[in-house]
Amino acid sequence: MQIVVPVLTPFTKDGKVDKETLKEHVRNLIKYVDVVFVNGTTGLGPALSKEEKKETLSAVYDVTDKVIFQVGSLNLNDAVELVNFSKDFHLVGVASYSPYYFQRLPEKWILNYFNELSRKAEHDFYLYNYPSATGYDISAKLVNKIEGIKGLKDTNQDLAHSLEYKIANPHLIVYNGSDSLVYYSLLSLDGTVASVANHSPHLLSAMRRFIKEGKKEKALQVQLIINSMLDVMRRYGQLSSTYSMVEVMMGYKVGYPRPPIYPLSEEEIHQLKSEVEPLKRKAEELISG
Amino acid sequence: MQIVVPVLTPFTKDGKVDKETLKEHVRNLIKYVDVVFVNGTTGLGPALSKEEKKETLSAVYDVTDKVIFQVGSLNLNDAVELVNFSKDFHLVGVASYSPYYFQRLPEKWILNYFNELSRKAEHDFYLYNYPSATGYDISAKLVNKIEGIKGLKDTNQDLAHSLEYKIANPHLIVYNGSDSLVYYSLLSLDGTVASVANHSPHLLSAMRRFIKEGKKEKALQVQLIINSMLDVMRRYGQLSSTYSMVEVMMGYKVGYPRPPIYPLSEEEIHQLKSEVEPLKRKAEELISG
Amino acid sequence: MQIVVPVLTPFTKDGKVDKETLKEHVRNLIKYVDVVFVNGTTGLGPALSKEEKKETLSAVYDVTDKVIFQVGSLNLNDAVELVNFSKDFHLVGVASYSPYYFQRLPEKWILNYFNELSRKAEHDFYLYNYPSATGYDISAKLVNKIEGIKGLKDTNQDLAHSLEYKIANPHLIVYNGSDSLVYYSLLSLDGTVASVANHSPHLLSAMRRFIKEGKKEKALQVQLIINSMLDVMRRYGQLSSTYSMVEVMMGYKVGYPRPPIYPLSEEEIHQLKSEVEPLKRKAEELISG
Amino acid sequence: MQIVVPVLTPFTKDGKVDKETLKEHVRNLIKYVDVVFVNGTTGLGPALSKEEKKETLSAVYDVTDKVIFQVGSLNLNDAVELVNFSKDFHLVGVASYSPYYFQRLPEKWILNYFNELSRKAEHDFYLYNYPSATGYDISAKLVNKIEGIKGLKDTNQDLAHSLEYKIANPHLIVYNGSDSLVYYSLLSLDGTVASVANHSPHLLSAMRRFIKEGKKEKALQVQLIINSMLDVMRRYGQLSSTYSMVEVMMGYKVGYPRPPIYPLSEEEIHQLKSEVEPLKRKAEELISG
Repeated sequence: MQIVVPVLTPFTKDGKVDKETLKEHVRNLIKYVDVVFVNGTTGLGPALSKEEKKETLSAVYDVTDKVIFQVGSLNLNDAVELVNFSKDFHLVGVASYSPYYFQRLPEKWILNYFNELSRKAEHDFYLYNYPSATGYDISAKLVNKIEGIKGLKDTNQDLAHSLEYKIANPHLIVYNGSDSLVYYSLLSLDGTVASVANHSPHLLSAMRRFIKEGKKEKALQVQLIINSMLDVMRRYGQLSSTYSMVEVMMGYKVGYPRPPIYPLSEEEIHQLKSEVEPLKRKAEELISG
Repeated sequence: MQIVVPVLTPFTKDGKVDKETLKEHVRNLIKYVDVVFVNGTTGLGPALSKEEKKETLSAVYDVTDKVIFQVGSLNLNDAVELVNFSKDFHLVGVASYSPYYFQRLPEKWILNYFNELSRKAEHDFYLYNYPSATGYDISAKLVNKIEGIKGLKDTNQDLAHSLEYKIANPHLIVYNGSDSLVYYSLLSLDGTVASVANHSPHLLSAMRRFIKEGKKEKALQVQLIINSMLDVMRRYGQLSSTYSMVEVMMGYKVGYPRPPIYPLSEEEIHQLKSEVEPLKRKAEELISG
Repeated sequence: MQIVVPVLTPFTKDGKVDKETLKEHVRNLIKYVDVVFVNGTTGLGPALSKEEKKETLSAVYDVTDKVIFQVGSLNLNDAVELVNFSKDFHLVGVASYSPYYFQRLPEKWILNYFNELSRKAEHDFYLYNYPSATGYDISAKLVNKIEGIKGLKDTNQDLAHSLEYKIANPHLIVYNGSDSLVYYSLLSLDGTVASVANHSPHLLSAMRRFIKEGKKEKALQVQLIINSMLDVMRRYGQLSSTYSMVEVMMGYKVGYPRPPIYPLSEEEIHQLKSEVEPLKRKAEELISG
Repeated sequence: MQIVVPVLTPFTKDGKVDKETLKEHVRNLIKYVDVVFVNGTTGLGPALSKEEKKETLSAVYDVTDKVIFQVGSLNLNDAVELVNFSKDFHLVGVASYSPYYFQRLPEKWILNYFNELSRKAEHDFYLYNYPSATGYDISAKLVNKIEGIKGLKDTNQDLAHSLEYKIANPHLIVYNGSDSLVYYSLLSLDGTVASVANHSPHLLSAMRRFIKEGKKEKALQVQLIINSMLDVMRRYGQLSSTYSMVEVMMGYKVGYPRPPIYPLSEEEIHQLKSEVEPLKRKAEELISG
């Protein structure tokens, strides 16, 4: 029942990776979560250059070695370079999403891509399956052809889909990556990779505690509050709202996203905050009660 | 009735842009086509680094200034840098696809993104709309809010969709970007941006001639042959087959794609060739007949 | 270059098939169109009982024998009964859509279904392919396994898809069924099955004339006017607007649709009319000009 | 934590509703399940005539009054007639799916349709939401506009979607209708409407017992076995396999489906059985162990 945070990447106003802010953020998160997933979607991985992906790893690694390092790229050479770069670090694992944007790539290319990475990796290799973003749904059958695969993050609203990996290979570590399904993921998989852990790691931590204590109803209530938060955040743009939510929920600033992921305006942050406050209070009562 | 080629990007075996081969390829194409679209999907634009996108422009520009330069990026700063870079060139225009991978970005961010580019561009600005790859379908209404927009490439199987732009704004230059709809695009839009122009520019040129001469039936026959070719190519992986098809149809090599867009194996090239040969002969008879 | 009208089914206010109004409507249409397609989607085929499907055929047949009779049903016995019923009529053909609603039916069941109908039919058999309504896209390969198939109506926004049937079997009669693609269908297929023919048969007829006279630009202008009409109609509900449009464009009433296809309110009809009038005038100028 | 069975409709070989077999089947099911959902998708509701829908209700009602009666139709008059017919029965409720096949019906028509039924119903009214079959996803917001709505069955792979109804209106009875998500539905909703209850009601019953006893791991194991069964069934055609599975799992015959839902061949039944037997044994061990 692990909680993994796909950590956001703080940028300065002029679009550089803000390493100090990233470190400070990770220091706060690591009190609640088990693993930090670097360069995921919430981390704006596909918008980072190869050098920036190295920077984020280095910064996070200054704080913790409980790290999965995402290296995927539309240029395999770049992804391989990142795998090689990772050899000097002690990590939980190296991960990659599939190619994206380009459609109808033959399955054997996709498999080649993953195998070239998994073979070169000295760490455990994880798949990051995110069909609605990449256009590729890596089937349980294909996953079992990836050499030495240790586990995967399945970002998918269908839990039966995540279970398929378990059925096909009970030894795989399987996380679901949907914020709105954390409760279910904790109840049936190896854990969750949840973007909300950036701003509400204490809620996820409390949810897990409730489950362990057999308080299913309270655990579910936490999920319902999270889903209400997500509903608000989506109206402002979910990726950018995550940055603002850190301030609303945790009380500190984590810099900016980078356009075309535009930061919320002051006005929007104000509105977001006023919409979220009642949910925050409700969550606090639930957890303390 | 323009024919635009979204030129492929030749790589060396170790994954560098092969500028000399690119120049030679453009020299051959420019005999048949009106404009070269650089860094499009066929050019593996989303897989190129910012520096590589500059290299492809420089190489093509050595041969012709009939160029539309695609600059889109998930990092707006990079796209702006490319727009600035383009100021030293005389070009037909600068273009950008929308952000991709990241889902549900608010419409105003998408508009901001395009406007920041169009305002900075000293050349005419073109939209590259490709919903099935990016996840964003830029509506005719939104297009009309992009300042100073000159035209667009709509990669879409629905011609009524491309016509919508014309209905909403008759002054826009509208190209359809589907290989399998060139005949219709020539008959109703300002032209086509067709990947097949990389290996069969003479077929497109003949199709246009047939239309001008009122030989609609023959023009349609050319389209049917092209569609049969596409059907073959898709089975081997369309992007990579485009490289091999240059040799099959035009008789010269254009280097390699770059993994995860893997080149065809020798065996596959052989099979592709044997499947395409009858279509090639049929096309030659039709054109000469 | 045939024009086929998928005739609407007029109902009385209390939901009975209004046979006299249907006859009168067909009498008006048949001056412009070549064939009447009975019990199609516009005819609310899937909402008609077996007995009602017989009534519509009988009524239309009183006016013309240029009829394709659609018999599809989720109960094969019913569809077979309708095929048998048709034997007493001289018809252009019998047609059927695929099963719908039920998902992932094995392909062999779909083929069985069509073959049981085509074998029993004494008339030419036509497929009605409408993937976005039925969930099944009948491939060119499968079509060629339907015994004695004469032709098909492909309701699809992708003309390359319709062309696939022609490529796989040049003897098939292929119609595209999209209102917004009539121009293209006339230029490349055997014709169109166009719902707009219910209210604007004279526009389709003029479009065809323009094409025959080599006036492609004028033909395309007619299509653009039709597409603008469709854009208006969709806002009020396209199926019901078709009934009201008969009055707006042709000057007579054709009864009511049947809930849950609700008729437009008086207020909506008034608004629809005021939006369509400018398009109607533009069309008249274009045709007479 | 209710278990609802969407009961299959047994047909005779020549396609009549086999009422005696239906009664016998319900008599067996009712030992394990709480409610019988009549004329659902598994019951081939959309393929039944109005009269047949009355027959199935009458037959089931001879055995139990724990019944939800599904009345949806593309002809509202027919649906209303069925609602009126139901007044002579004591039922748990009346339900309806949305219109289907016809696309882009305005939201207000959909709402009108449901309200005309809910107002006329003397029983509690339930919505049956099944977007992938009907094309309409009835939002939580729209559901709250249906007068006097009591609950709904949401057939959807996304549990967060089902939770939305609960968040918007905690008083609604919400079932999820996916066989592969029963475990989760029992843990977070008011229950499940599961087609597998036709052949494996004892497995669902055991799963519920395990959950009540705090044996989450064993409950999940039951779900994994069910999912493996579904995987087998889908390869033969899920709807028809349900009939054959009753014999495999329960030991008695329940007649035939009706074409185009073709029954499995003897050969297919034999294969299905041999694939399912190991799963059946595994389930028996799990339940007894």
